[in-house]
This record gives sequence, structure tokens and C-alpha cells, in this order.
Amino acid sequence: MMQIKITNGENLPNIPWQEKPEGLTGAPVWRYTENPVIKRNPVEGVARIFNSAVVPYEGAFIGVFRGEQVNGIPYIYLGRSENGIDWTFDKEKIHFVNEKGEEFEPVYAYDPRLVKIEDVYYIIWCGDFYGASIGLAKTTDFKTFTRLENPFIPFNRNAVLFPRKMNGNFVMMSRPSDSGHTPFGDIFLSESPDMVYWGKHRHVMGKGNEWWDAVKIGGGSAPIETSEGWLLFFHGVTGTCNGLVYSIGGAILDVDNPSIVKYRCENFLLTPQEWYEERGFVGNVCFPCATLQDSDTGRIAIYYGAADTYVAMAFTKVDEVVDYIKTHSKLTESDIELGIR
Amino acid sequence: MMQIKITNGENLPNIPWQEKPEGLTGAPVWRYTENPVIKRNPVEGVARIFNSAVVPYEGAFIGVFRGEQVNGIPYIYLGRSENGIDWTFDKEKIHFVNEKGEEFEPVYAYDPRLVKIEDVYYIIWCGDFYGASIGLAKTTDFKTFTRLENPFIPFNRNAVLFPRKMNGNFVMMSRPSDSGHTPFGDIFLSESPDMVYWGKHRHVMGKGNEWWDAVKIGGGSAPIETSEGWLLFFHGVTGTCNGLVYSIGGAILDVDNPSIVKYRCENFLLTPQEWYEERGFVGNVCFPCATLQDSDTGRIAIYYGAADTYVAMAFTKVDEVVDYIKTHSKLTESDIELGIR
Amino acid sequence: MMQIKITNGENLPNIPWQEKPEGLTGAPVWRYTENPVIKRNPVEGVARIFNSAVVPYEGAFIGVFRGEQVNGIPYIYLGRSENGIDWTFDKEKIHFVNEKGEEFEPVYAYDPRLVKIEDVYYIIWCGDFYGASIGLAKTTDFKTFTRLENPFIPFNRNAVLFPRKMNGNFVMMSRPSDSGHTPFGDIFLSESPDMVYWGKHRHVMGKGNEWWDAVKIGGGSAPIETSEGWLLFFHGVTGTCNGLVYSIGGAILDVDNPSIVKYRCENFLLTPQEWYEERGFVGNVCFPCATLQDSDTGRIAIYYGAADTYVAMAFTKVDEVVDYIKTHSKLTESDIELGIR
Amino acid sequence: MMQIKITNGENLPNIPWQEKPEGLTGAPVWRYTENPVIKRNPVEGVARIFNSAVVPYEGAFIGVFRGEQVNGIPYIYLGRSENGIDWTFDKEKIHFVNEKGEEFEPVYAYDPRLVKIEDVYYIIWCGDFYGASIGLAKTTDFKTFTRLENPFIPFNRNAVLFPRKMNGNFVMMSRPSDSGHTPFGDIFLSESPDMVYWGKHRHVMGKGNEWWDAVKIGGGSAPIETSEGWLLFFHGVTGTCNGLVYSIGGAILDVDNPSIVKYRCENFLLTPQEWYEERGFVGNVCFPCATLQDSDTGRIAIYYGAADTYVAMAFTKVDEVVDYIKTHSKLTESDIELGIR
Amino acid sequence: MMQIKITNGENLPNIPWQEKPEGLTGAPVWRYTENPVIKRNPVEGVARIFNSAVVPYEGAFIGVFRGEQVNGIPYIYLGRSENGIDWTFDKEKIHFVNEKGEEFEPVYAYDPRLVKIEDVYYIIWCGDFYGASIGLAKTTDFKTFTRLENPFIPFNRNAVLFPRKMNGNFVMMSRPSDSGHTPFGDIFLSESPDMVYWGKHRHVMGKGNEWWDAVKIGGGSAPIETSEGWLLFFHGVTGTCNGLVYSIGGAILDVDNPSIVKYRCENFLLTPQEWYEERGFVGNVCFPCATLQDSDTGRIAIYYGAADTYVAMAFTKVDEVVDYIKTHSKLTESDIELGIR
Amino acid sequence: MMQIKITNGENLPNIPWQEKPEGLTGAPVWRYTENPVIKRNPVEGVARIFNSAVVPYEGAFIGVFRGEQVNGIPYIYLGRSENGIDWTFDKEKIHFVNEKGEEFEPVYAYDPRLVKIEDVYYIIWCGDFYGASIGLAKTTDFKTFTRLENPFIPFNRNAVLFPRKMNGNFVMMSRPSDSGHTPFGDIFLSESPDMVYWGKHRHVMGKGNEWWDAVKIGGGSAPIETSEGWLLFFHGVTGTCNGLVYSIGGAILDVDNPSIVKYRCENFLLTPQEWYEERGFVGNVCFPCATLQDSDTGRIAIYYGAADTYVAMAFTKVDEVVDYIKTHSKLTESDIELGIR
Repeated sequence: MMQIKITNGENLPNIPWQEKPEGLTGAPVWRYTENPVIKRNPVEGVARIFNSAVVPYEGAFIGVFRGEQVNGIPYIYLGRSENGIDWTFDKEKIHFVNEKGEEFEPVYAYDPRLVKIEDVYYIIWCGDFYGASIGLAKTTDFKTFTRLENPFIPFNRNAVLFPRKMNGNFVMMSRPSDSGHTPFGDIFLSESPDMVYWGKHRHVMGKGNEWWDAVKIGGGSAPIETSEGWLLFFHGVTGTCNGLVYSIGGAILDVDNPSIVKYRCENFLLTPQEWYEERGFVGNVCFPCATLQDSDTGRIAIYYGAADTYVAMAFTKVDEVVDYIKTHSKLTESDIELGIR
Repeated sequence: MMQIKITNGENLPNIPWQEKPEGLTGAPVWRYTENPVIKRNPVEGVARIFNSAVVPYEGAFIGVFRGEQVNGIPYIYLGRSENGIDWTFDKEKIHFVNEKGEEFEPVYAYDPRLVKIEDVYYIIWCGDFYGASIGLAKTTDFKTFTRLENPFIPFNRNAVLFPRKMNGNFVMMSRPSDSGHTPFGDIFLSESPDMVYWGKHRHVMGKGNEWWDAVKIGGGSAPIETSEGWLLFFHGVTGTCNGLVYSIGGAILDVDNPSIVKYRCENFLLTPQEWYEERGFVGNVCFPCATLQDSDTGRIAIYYGAADTYVAMAFTKVDEVVDYIKTHSKLTESDIELGIR
Repeated sequence: MMQIKITNGENLPNIPWQEKPEGLTGAPVWRYTENPVIKRNPVEGVARIFNSAVVPYEGAFIGVFRGEQVNGIPYIYLGRSENGIDWTFDKEKIHFVNEKGEEFEPVYAYDPRLVKIEDVYYIIWCGDFYGASIGLAKTTDFKTFTRLENPFIPFNRNAVLFPRKMNGNFVMMSRPSDSGHTPFGDIFLSESPDMVYWGKHRHVMGKGNEWWDAVKIGGGSAPIETSEGWLLFFHGVTGTCNGLVYSIGGAILDVDNPSIVKYRCENFLLTPQEWYEERGFVGNVCFPCATLQDSDTGRIAIYYGAADTYVAMAFTKVDEVVDYIKTHSKLTESDIELGIR
Repeated sequence: MMQIKITNGENLPNIPWQEKPEGLTGAPVWRYTENPVIKRNPVEGVARIFNSAVVPYEGAFIGVFRGEQVNGIPYIYLGRSENGIDWTFDKEKIHFVNEKGEEFEPVYAYDPRLVKIEDVYYIIWCGDFYGASIGLAKTTDFKTFTRLENPFIPFNRNAVLFPRKMNGNFVMMSRPSDSGHTPFGDIFLSESPDMVYWGKHRHVMGKGNEWWDAVKIGGGSAPIETSEGWLLFFHGVTGTCNGLVYSIGGAILDVDNPSIVKYRCENFLLTPQEWYEERGFVGNVCFPCATLQDSDTGRIAIYYGAADTYVAMAFTKVDEVVDYIKTHSKLTESDIELGIR
Repeated sequence: MMQIKITNGENLPNIPWQEKPEGLTGAPVWRYTENPVIKRNPVEGVARIFNSAVVPYEGAFIGVFRGEQVNGIPYIYLGRSENGIDWTFDKEKIHFVNEKGEEFEPVYAYDPRLVKIEDVYYIIWCGDFYGASIGLAKTTDFKTFTRLENPFIPFNRNAVLFPRKMNGNFVMMSRPSDSGHTPFGDIFLSESPDMVYWGKHRHVMGKGNEWWDAVKIGGGSAPIETSEGWLLFFHGVTGTCNGLVYSIGGAILDVDNPSIVKYRCENFLLTPQEWYEERGFVGNVCFPCATLQDSDTGRIAIYYGAADTYVAMAFTKVDEVVDYIKTHSKLTESDIELGIR
Repeated sequence: MMQIKITNGENLPNIPWQEKPEGLTGAPVWRYTENPVIKRNPVEGVARIFNSAVVPYEGAFIGVFRGEQVNGIPYIYLGRSENGIDWTFDKEKIHFVNEKGEEFEPVYAYDPRLVKIEDVYYIIWCGDFYGASIGLAKTTDFKTFTRLENPFIPFNRNAVLFPRKMNGNFVMMSRPSDSGHTPFGDIFLSESPDMVYWGKHRHVMGKGNEWWDAVKIGGGSAPIETSEGWLLFFHGVTGTCNGLVYSIGGAILDVDNPSIVKYRCENFLLTPQEWYEERGFVGNVCFPCATLQDSDTGRIAIYYGAADTYVAMAFTKVDEVVDYIKTHSKLTESDIELGIR
């Protein structure tokens, strides 16, 4: 287990962290004891913050947050933190411009991810493009946010970028959807030479054979490059007679051909069981959107939305979680295919 | 803000009341700290009381309460209180007679409202008229309850009377429904010269453009006459992948032509976030059914059903809440129309 | 069987007529051999005419017709005929005014009925009143058509007036509906002293215990007063794995208390089996909307929509059809009730 | 009330027990104060145990437990307890063989019941037989578990055996279902001379006229033979706009012809109201699967699944609960029929 | 192809027959040129006869016919024919008695099959057993029809017996269903030593991988024993945006273990394309319910319901059709399994 | 009307043609009198050909045809015709290779379009890319068919290319869909510099305000460049209680910015009314997939699928049809927008 490494070379000594509690059995992912880190009504006019993403920035942390306004409509809010746990938020939602610098606000925007590629920070969200689809913007200073072309036609949700180009192309994962609460969902991957035109689409992985992810899955945080491949935390959804349950799963994608799944954990890594996960605006939801990681120690901090109401955190170590995923890996035929038909 | 007044001239010095808590931001509506005021199993044979209405009566308070019996069937129970907070209930549900004095019980009866017009108290509920529709009865002494003709054919719910006649006619708001859990809902208004025949129907307001009331809305407590128009607390419903969420909204109707909405608050005034609102028989429900108000001080006490399980209370002041509604008003075309097609 | 009579005293010697074909078994209702009487594209800009109503007028016949325009939207068109079989239509749809004489067009209008009461002709249709509901207008000269107040809030369809007042009140049957293709449906009755305010609602009859009308029913042509009571032709709907099937049924209502069903035929009187009934815009539909009748001979001509595409005719004689209904009558508990709860 | 007795003659002096709390009104069934007795993550690799069954065994207790694995798939686990309250579980799920002794594992297995008949212990569960249906196995030593022929073709759930043969035949209750979350459900009974061939099917009881069991019902624990007939605890389900609610009901079946219901309690005996019943993987579920009973004292301990997450216990006494059921009995026509058509 | 034989040894020289038309390509099944053989309104009080079964009897033919009465409710009618093509029907539906000789009529009865086993004729139908399920009766003289125990609890349809016992047991195929228009369906098989108790259930075959039978399948006519195995004509159903389409398929089951499918034709044998198949009460339905066969010549006459409105006939020869099925056979894993889990 | 011209400069003197029939009113589109031109069972192993596309080729005509095989699965078949009316088909479906020349067959392929751009013929279809999506291939000789990258991730249908590049980019219209029979549908446009990467997505037009296209729309034949803009024939779908109805509509897109709709005809141009349109595998479908046009005369021949069973043809002239579209144009806000959000 020792030689599994985070290979992107970035150290983050100030990563938020708690050691694994004694007696933890099962998947080596443990909750922050002071969860939730962001509670209801975090800022005037915003009822709930959840499903949000953070990155290290200038020695501290910065993030893009799904702020559910008191009219129910979600937009993205900027937040800052010294320790990655206690956050302060701008009162105003983020304003976007187009490439000419003209105002260009999304109709709504939710479930943002935030990925740094070659010194540019990209925000990816779900917005309205005559139907739910993916919005995309970039910033270098967290002051000016420039929207790029929408990468896809509707219906799509849960898109996230890989943190580096592959074969000269940007690579984005996304989850084709429908116009409602989508009762299906597979993860696909698309490439772009220029963030304008997208193609070479490949199927990555579908809903699972197990029961915890038997309804649909969707990409979560940006993949983490490790010595075993891309470590992906995603959400898996199951159905009950009283609604859906969202858990966190883990998989390892091939480092060169990430549409090929090398390992896929048959067990969830985290499933709703705490009060802040069980109940809220949408109960029984654990929805991962971002991680922080420290190459030196292999520590990983996972940020996840809880019950569409809170932001919570969990911790793991790269060697332990990758080992657990490999040990409990079960692959389907569509996982291991290149993903083209 | 000072000159907004309750204009019906009724003082209620013994109105239940708590001052606004420090640090409250957002809508000026705050919960009673000892909520819920009616808990589970309030009386033998009744599992839950919620969605209920009260009025001042002989120096104290009286009310009609949705009592969910231990067989699951709702009927209306009479309750009395000295302070409007602590209630005692009759063991027997209310018995109704027809206009000849013969027994005439509803098949079931739920979500009652209670409105005094010219010294008569009218109870309006949802019952079975070969389909869910509006039941109507009157009393002057809370001993004899005389059912009147059903005002509408099915399917209808959430009806409430205005507390005075307009142009010589009684005026009732209601919400056309369907035979199930109705995935739509607009508020209409109807007039009657005699409480027997109803007509001059007008559309008042439809579901909202915001998200918190994007599925349906329904009338709540009887409108309060103010110097700005009729102050209406209503419920707005949104949908999630795990069910509906009921919040409390506010609007001001034209005092002479109440089918015209003058102001409609784009934000909810109260949304489920406390344990007694989040979970119960039907989680995530705040459902306003009655208010008490004091002209002198402008104090308003709101009674609302919580999670189809409890009765809870919230407070506001007329000047603050009307000001908030006006400040955050957003109107749609169908709001401002006269409402006839 | 001899003494069953049409009792409204109106003779119509020029009623369209064909004698019963030899060998007809079952219900004594027979199709016109030259059906359909109105075919596709009957007038420029109108793709189909169906579900329409006619009356004798000035020695000939006049009618209001559902004209499905080439944009798919239905309006009402006026048609005239010398023999009740061959029809010519106005190119312009009927224009309506309100009681002040101002233009007041419905958003759309379909399935009209036409009933003469005390020298006034009333048109009743289904239109948009912020949801499908009943529209109502009157004319005395078929030149000016004055809309009255909408009698009901949504959702409602298939309304028709009785051809005379009872106890001084107008009486209307209607069928409460929902916002879609309504999978249920009972017939109710409402009274009005003035065509403005409606009340004293009663339930008339519900969907049937037999299979041909097991999904829903709806009022058809205006009831015919006979010595046995009100003779009602209505539609009954059943469901198959490939869609709904609309047949024509018959019932006799109490002449004084028409919410009480005296006889209800367990068998359909006519069910789709001809090409013009089986296929078209909506296949398998026989939808009665009007009759002509001659007191002298007891002849009845039924106009019915076929497959939402054509107008067809069928014939019967009052004594035979009433006898058949009585002989095959089966009543449910809700049929024979007064219809109030 | 005194002479109502458990008549199977088995004493169980070590039955888990708490006395009725003071002030309990309504149905004489009270929760164990230390509920839930089995909590989340009870054993490595199992996220939740619930909907499970126990029997006395060798002076202590043994049981078969629905263990929801961390991949979401349910299997049956063996558990043992000295006091019937504190349980230890085998780490491995139960392994089954066929009658030749060859391994024969179910695809999945949930909601097991456990019934002793003539010194053989029978396990009945819901498994996959090309669709959800009933699985059946026997053991005498809780070491070897031999699967028998599946008694029925799909779709079926909630089967349980009577604890003795009648007329020489085994008797099983079951609940025909469909391929999803079945929105209907009646209890049937079938006989078998040999546990291979089943027939003489009879309808026992359908969903209720009250509201708490208006959607569907299903058999729960094995019936208890009493001097009044077979005492049956079953689950009844109602629907709300936010999901299903499962309560516990009670009925008495004829001791000789158990397809005839003698008494059926119109009220639920227990309905979700505690935190462990209200929320979890499937909130608002109380699902009885087993009882222990002591003939001497008439004490009954009920084991029920709570929120598809926990095992909880409740207590009653045979005379009190039978008396309550009789006092509040309401029977429908299909309850009292022999149940053959 | 020559050596494929019908092996039950029964000759039927008067089998209805037409030779294969010239130029027929594809599956070797051809329609009778005078189809449909039973038309609308075949007997007083019956609107349509379809989905019916026939056998040779006393040198002529006799059959049980689904008669859709003019009230829409189906019962079984007896019909007789000299030539198997022209049928006369009893005016009265078949009356059933129980084994004591007492009247015991089904609530309704449809889609009958008729199978002779050891000189007894068995009728199998779908009826109401507190839900759609299989009814069963026997006769030896077509005068007395004695109902046996219902073989299964609901929900079930499309049952048919094999024409001889296997291993001393009767063998029945059936298709588990749900309470509505069942969007799934596999064929199972059950055994009975005595026509009272049924067990040893096995899965035979599921819906297909091709598109014509991708929604569900169901047993059709009684299997024909051939030198290659049991020849089964069944129906396969596909879905379109405008409803279901029922085609006729063919398979060969293992002669000793008929739950094992030896060959399954990937193509339909007959699909709706004639007017009497395309339109009617339920359009686009070809539904096989019976065959006649002649061992000498290998001729097979197939009776199938058309559009839930007519009875039609098609012809084939055993060697040609078995050869076609074998040549175009595609098996799935669940086809070739023994069918126990 | 005279100066409206087809501006792509291609003459097609041998275009199939019939003159407008006398007395035609309404839209100037008339059916070929010998319709359907392709009937059932057109080639061994293919039950139906419909929804297909043709181009002029080497002085005659060639096309790609949706062939519904006798197993129900659609593939694309090549057909040839001297006169554009009588077609012969290859027995084998088209085989595809990838860009390396290796076999690369689609899982299934339906509703093909065929567009020539700069001497290359592109086939666009709907296939399975882990969900219904767009397949794309090119050929220059109709012998080798080379698949290109799939342009989009699922779910998508009804894609078609513009017949020339704009601003150096290929331009494709498509219709985002869902995993079933999609109850919504707007047309979008995407650009690609290289047929590999696609972006600059724009919304073109949504479902209509009229009723005939109120459910969804989808692109049909490749747009025809005219002096007024791009002439687009598309399908519009409406819903009835018995299924969907597909009609043909017309619009004119801006020649330079084709996401802007200049004119959109409020009326259908053709709606099902002939037997081959009304009934078949999916009744009531007119589905345009290709046109031929002659610049000299302005003649246009439209090929459309009828009832998912036949290929039919209709004719129009460019000046007449553009004039009709302009005269009856009604635009919505989303039509005239640039189509980016």
C-alpha cells in the first residue's frame, strides 16, 4: 500500500485534516467531527450552501459555492477561508462576462466545480442553455470571470475537468441527463483542443451492478492523478420507495486512456447516516464536489454536499483509499471498454 | 414603513407574541421559540394535529383543528386556549347538521380555515364531494355547526373566505386541484350573494417564476386588510428528486379588486429548517392556515402546520412584513390581470 | 313500449331520418349509411370538424362546430344546413363579445353544445380559463354572440344545459376534469337563478361498473324530456394497452330531480367499429354532442364526433331506445343517490 | 379480557420485556425505551440490519437478519442473543445448499421470516427468481440451511408460514407484488402437503378502508394462535405527497379457516414517530417481522424494522391487544369471504 | 428438413388448410386469404370475438371463445364448426360449476386456451381472483364445465397446458403479470401431480434481445410435440410512441426439460400488417391462442386474435417452420438455463 | 412571389414531379398520387422502410433507407432509383468502417439523412452510443462508408447537416432527447471546423405555440438555400389521449446566422390524413427526411416517412411554399434570439 502516491507534485501542508478515528471499519473515509462546516443561512439572502468546490489559493483557500437564494434559485458565490473549514462569502453572487467583457450572467447556476489547469482556474456548473446543460468560465484572479462557449447542448449535468491536458487536449467528464430528475446516468468524457469545440467523446462508466449505485452515477470532484491512475470520487444513486439516496463511490481510471476504468469499488465509500446527511432540503444525499490533497503525506480532504443543505467534509489517505478500491474492485464490461460505439 | 396599518380596526391585546430575535436577517418572520405548540398524540384517538385555524373568541381563543385519527382519517376538532399557545381539545370531533338541523357529517374533513364575517363564524375545509372539494359550515356559538351548500364541484382544496363582503358579495379564494397530489395549482376567487350560488370567478395568482413556489401555490390564512391592500400568507411548493417542499409566501392583493395582485414577494417568508418542519408524517412542510392580528401594535401571529404532524407558530409585524413584500416584489403578467378569460 | 313519448311538444317533421336496417340486433341505434356527414378539410383553414351541436332554426338547421384549424387550435364555427346532413360553414370562426358588447374571444374553444331555453340559444364549450374550463355564451339571432360569466373554475369539460329551467333555475351538467387527459370523470349538475352564480351542485352519475365506461364518462347531448324522465346520451370511456375507446351510452334521469338516475343502460348503445370511427386524429372515438327529435314520431337523430376527425349521425326512436335502456338497466349506489355529501 | 390466551402452549419465561408505561393511551403496544436494539454498521461490511426475525433457541435466541451490505445488496445473516436484545452476528452471510447438498445461494435475499414447525425451522425471504419472489429454506441446527423449491412464481413478497399445519397441510401467507415498488397489495394464503407443490390459494385480506393502510398491506410476523383465533401483526401502508408511511396493524383470523378475518383493527397499533422510525434509508417505516410470546403471562415482544435502517422492539400483552383489536374491529366484505373466486 | 415430424401421432385430415402462396419470402407462415374468420358482432350481445382456442372434436371442431359482451366484459363462449373456419356460437356464455356441482361463475374470463390431456379437455383462462390470475376448468362432454382450484395467486395471464403429462405431472406455462397493462413479462412453467397443488416452478424464457419482443412475451397456443422438441408459438410485444405491437414468435423447447429453450427464432413469424390486424379495439395485435395440426402431413393451422376484434387464421408446415426457427435461432443466457434460482 | 429562388445553383431536370392538383387549398404542398412509393416488405428480411433520405447521384438517385428488419432492429440500407420513385435495395445493410478501415458497425441505426458537402456525402443517423445519439459517416463512392467520431454525447436524435460550410465550419442541426419517447424537443445547431470537435452550439427553435407542434419538433430534411434564407422542413408533434401525431412544418432560417428564425409557419404544411399515414407500425406520422430540388423550376420533392411503415412523397414549389410560410409566419421570442445563454 505504501507506494501509492499522488503524482501531481503539489504539496499542501496546510490541508485541513483529522486523523482516522479508532475502530473505523469498512471504507477508509471518515467524517470531520465538526460537520457540517457550512450551515443553513450562511449569508444574507442565501438559504443554503452545498455541492461546492474549493482550491488552494495564495496560501489559503478559495472556492465557488452553490448558494440557494431565498427565492430558491441557485447561483454561484465566491468564498474564502484561511483553514479550509471556516468560510466567508461574498454577499454578491459571482458576475460573469463574455469574452468581449460584456455582462453575461447565467439564468441560474448550480453544483459548480473548480479546476486549475496551467495557471487558469476553470469553473464548470450546470445552467440553463434552453435546458439544463454545462456552463464554463475561467478566471485567473477571482475578480474577472469570463464565460466560454457552452461545451455541450442539453441535457447535461455534473461536468468536471481533468486537472491537466492529455495529448494536448483539455478533457472533461460529464453526465448526460434529461429534462427532469433523470432516472439514469452514465459518465462520459470529451476532449477539446481549445475549450471551444469538443469531440472524441467516450463512455467512461455506467450505473453499477451493485445496489447503491444502481439508478445513476455522476462525476464528482476533479480526478486526482496517482501512481495507479486517476482517482475519481463520484456519486452513486439508488432508489427506494421513498426517494433517492446519494452515496460517494470511488474508481481508478487509466492514466493515459481515462475512458477505461481500471478499478471500481463495489462498495460505497460514504453513505448518508448523519443527521446533516439524512435530512434537509433533499434528504439522504452525500454529493462530493471537490478535494484537496497533499502529495507529501497523501492526505485527501473531500468536500461534499449534504442533504442539499450543508457542506460537509471527510478525510482519507491516498494509499488507503486506493488500496480499498482495488481490493473491492468489480468491473462491468462497459467499464473496461474504450467507450466508443 | 410606519404608516402601514391593519385596517380592520380589531384590537387583540392578548395576542400571543414574542419579539423579533436579535440578528435575524432576511424576511421579518420569526418562529416561536417553544415550537411546536401542538405535539403528537394530542388527544386520545388522534395521532397528529396540524394545518388548523384559530380566532379570538370571548376574550380567549378558539379554533378548528385537523385531527388525524389513529385510523389515518382526518376530521375537524374543536380546541380552546386562554393564551393562544396552550390548547385543549374536545374528545369528539365536531358534528355537523344541515340547514334543517339533521345530522350531516362529512366523509372526511381536513385543512380547515375559520373566518368571522359579520358575527358569523364560517368553517371552510376540504372534504369528499364525490372527489376532494370544499366543505362549508357556519356557527355562531361553536355548539351548533350548520353545513351550507358545497360551493364548488370537485376538485378543489385550500379555500378561505375574505373576512368581509365586497360589493355586497361574499368572496372566497380556492385552489382548483385534481384527484391526486395535484402537480399544479393557481389561486382563484369567487363571489356569492348568498353563500349558495357562486360565480364571477377570477384568477388571482399562479405558481411562481421563482423556484420555491414553482410547482404550485395555495391560499393559506384569511387575508388581512391593511392600508396597502389585502395581506395574504400563502403556501408555495417546489419539487426535489425526493419530494415536495412547502414554504410560506406573502402577497398584497388590491383592496377593491382582490383578483389583482399588487405585490408578490419573490422570496419565501419561511421555509422548513427546524426538526419539526423537516420531518414527520410529511417532511419539509410549512403550511399557514390562520393568523391573529392586533391593529394597535401591528403584531401578527401566524399558525402553520409543520410536517403534517405539528402546529407551530411564527410572528411578524404588519409594517415590516408588508415592507419586505413590497421591497422584494416581482409580478408576473397573470398576477396583475383582472383574471378573466 | 308504445306510451314512451318525447314530452317537450316540439315537432320536427323535417328531421333527418333513415329507417332501422333489417336484422339489426342489440341496441336500437343505427348509423346513417352515408356517414360521415362532414369530412376532412371542410373549409379553408380548418382541417377537421367534429364534436359539434345543431338545433332546428327557422325551418332549417343551424349549428356550432368544433373546427380544428390548420394550426391545430380549435375554435367554434357556425354552420347551416337545409336538411341537417349537408352543411355549409362560415369561413370565419364565431366572434364573441362580452355583455358590454366589447370583443371577448376565447383563447381556444372546443366541443360546443347548443341549447335553446326560452327563445335564447346558449352555447357551452370548453375553453381556457387559466386551465380548461367551461365557456358560456348566448345568442338570439346567431349574429351576436354574448359571452356570460364562466360558470365554474377549472378544470371542467363536457358541460351541457338542460333545455328548460327547473324550479326556476337553469340547470347545467358538467364533468370535473384535471389539467391533462383526465383518467377519471363523473357527471355533476349545478343550478343557477341567473346564469351568473352557480350552486346546489349534485353528483349525477360516475364511471360505470361495466367495462365500456370503466375509465370515465361525460355528458353528451342536451337531455331529451320524455314521459320516463330525461333521456341522456353520454360518452363512456374504457382503456386498452393502446389507448382509450369512447362509446355512446344511455341513461334516464328523474324528471324532477335529475341528479337521480332512474335507469342506466349497462351496454353501450354505439361503439367504434366503422372506418371513420376507428381511425383519424384520435382513433376509436364516438362522441355524442347533439340530437334532433320529433315529438310526433319519436324519431331521434344523434350527431356524434368520430375519431376527432368527422361528424357522423345515428338514428333511434324514443320508445325503442328508452325501452332498451330500461330493459338493460343496472344502477350503482352513487347513481340513485341525491348526490350530495 | 382475562380469558384471551396464547394457545400454542409454549412458555418463554426469558422473553425480553418492559412493562407498559404509565399514561399510555390508544393501542396497548409500547416501544422498548432503549430502541433501536440494532444500530447502523452492526458488523463489518454491513451498513444496516432491519426487517428481521428471531425465535427462541436452546434457552437463548437466534435469528435471521436482513443485512444490507456496503454494496447495497441484502443477504441474510445469522445472529444470536442471550437476552433477545443484544445481538451478535456472524461475519459471513448464511450459505444455502440445495437438497442434494450443493451450494445454492440466492442472488439476493431480504425481509426474512423464521418459523418453527414440528422441530424444523423454516426461513422464508424475498429473493430473485427471475423477478422478486419467495425463497424458502429449512434448518434444524442452524448450521446447514437447505433450500426447498420456490413456492411461487414472481412477483411476491412478505411471505410467512403459520407455525403449525392445518388439515395436514403447511399454510403460507404471501403478498402478490409487481416488479417495482408495488402500489397495491393483498394478503393471500396457500397450502402445501409437502412444501413442494402449493395450491388451494385463498384471499385473506386486502388493503384497508381506513387511510393508514389504504395503499397496501403485507404479512408481518408469523401468526400467534390464541383462544380468539390467529393473531396477526401486519404492515399497512399509506401514501403522502412525499412518500409512503408503513405502520403496524393487527387482525384476528379464524383459527380453522384462516382466510376468514374475524376482527381487523381499524386503527394502526404503531406508527412512525420516533427518530429511528422517521428517518434513515427509507424514512417513516415500522415493519414487523417477528414476535416472541410467553403463554403463561401472555407477553408478546414484537421485532420490527425501523426506517429500513434499524431493528426496534415493542411490547404488548395478548389479552390487551386482542381486546383492542376486537373493540376497534371493522371488516370489509372481502375480509370475511372465504377468499375464492 | 424432411425428418421434422409432429410426434403426438394424431392425424387430422380435415384440418383447415391453404397452400403457401407463391413468392412468400421470410418466415414460412401465411395468412388465410379470407381472414378474418370471425367478424364483429358475431352473436347477439357480443361485440367482438378474438383470442380464442379450438380443438378437433367428434370429427368436427369445437372451441372456447373470448366473447367481449356489449357491456365490455369478456366471458367464454362455446362455438362449433364443421370445417374449422365457419363457426356458430352458443348464445349463452359457458356456465361453470365447482367440484360439488354448484354454480361457480368467474367474475370475468378472457383469452381462453383449450387443451386435451388424456381424454379430458381443460380450459385455462385469465379471470379475477382478487386480481387478474389464471382460472382452470375441465370438461369431457362440453356440457358440464367443472372449475378446479385456481393454480396461482395473482397476477398472472396467458397460461396454457402442455398436452401431456411429464414425469407424471401436469405442466403449465404462465406469464406473471401485474395489476395493469404489465410492461414486462417472462414465461414460467409449473408442475402439478393433481391439478390442485403446483410447484417446481421454472423460468422458461424472457423478453427478447431483438426489438419485436423487447417489452414482453407470453405463451400462446399449447406446445406441439415434434421430433425436435416442443414447438411453441408465443406472442412478443414491442413498444412505440403510439402503443404496443403484438407479433407472433416461435421457439423449440427441450422435449424432456421444457424449461430449457433449444431454439428461439430471432425474427417474428407474423406481425400486424393487414387491416384486421392493424385496427380494431386494440390495433396492431396478432395474438396466437391455438393450433390444429395433422401428423401425417405436418400441416399446422394457427388461430390468432387480431386487433382484439377478430379471429384470424394462418398456416404453416411443421418442417418448414421448425427449420426456419432453427436457422434463425438466437438464444440468451436465461433461455438455456434450467430456470431455477 | 416570383423572385424567391433556390440559390444553390443545382439543376435537377429529372426531379420526380407532379403538378399541383386543382382545387388544392391551404398549404401549397401536395401528395404524390401513387403514394406510398415504398411499401411493406420491400426486401427479404426487411419488414418496413421509412424515414429515409435520397440525393441525386450520377444522373439518377441514390439513398440511405431505414430498414426495419424482421427482428425489429433498424439498420441503414442502400437504395437506387432511376426516377426517384421506384427503388431497388441492396439485400445487405450498409457496412461501416472506421478511419483505419476496420469494420465498425453501429449497434443499430435509424432515421438517416444524407447530405452532400463539397463532393463528400455524409450520412447522419441515430444510433446507440451508450444511449441514443448521433452517428456520422462519409462516403464518396457509396461503396466505402467511413464512420467519423460521434459528434455528441447522448441523448440526441434527428440530426442533419447544412449542405455547405458557413464561416469555414460545418454546421449541424440536432434535437437533444432523452432515453425514451422524449416528451419535449428543441432544435439546436453546432459547428465544427473538422467534423471531429463540435462547439458554438446555438438554440434554433423550440416547440411551437400552436397545437400541431406543441409537444416537440425535430429537424427533417437538409435545409435548402433560397434567396429568403434557409428553407427548413421539420416535423412537429402534438399529443392526443391516444398518442402522438407527427406533421410537417416549414420555417426560414437566416442565411448567415441560421440560429435565427426569420419566418416560421404557424400552420402545418402536411398532416396525416391518408391511409398510409394514419395507420401502420406507428399511426399518424408524417416525417420528412429529404428533399430534391431543381433550381431552374423551383420544384421541390419531399420524401417523408409515413406511419413508420412506408415512404411517401409530396411536392411543392419554392416560391409558393416560401410565400405561404412568410404569409403565415408567427415567431416566438426564442425563435428570433441568437440562441445562446
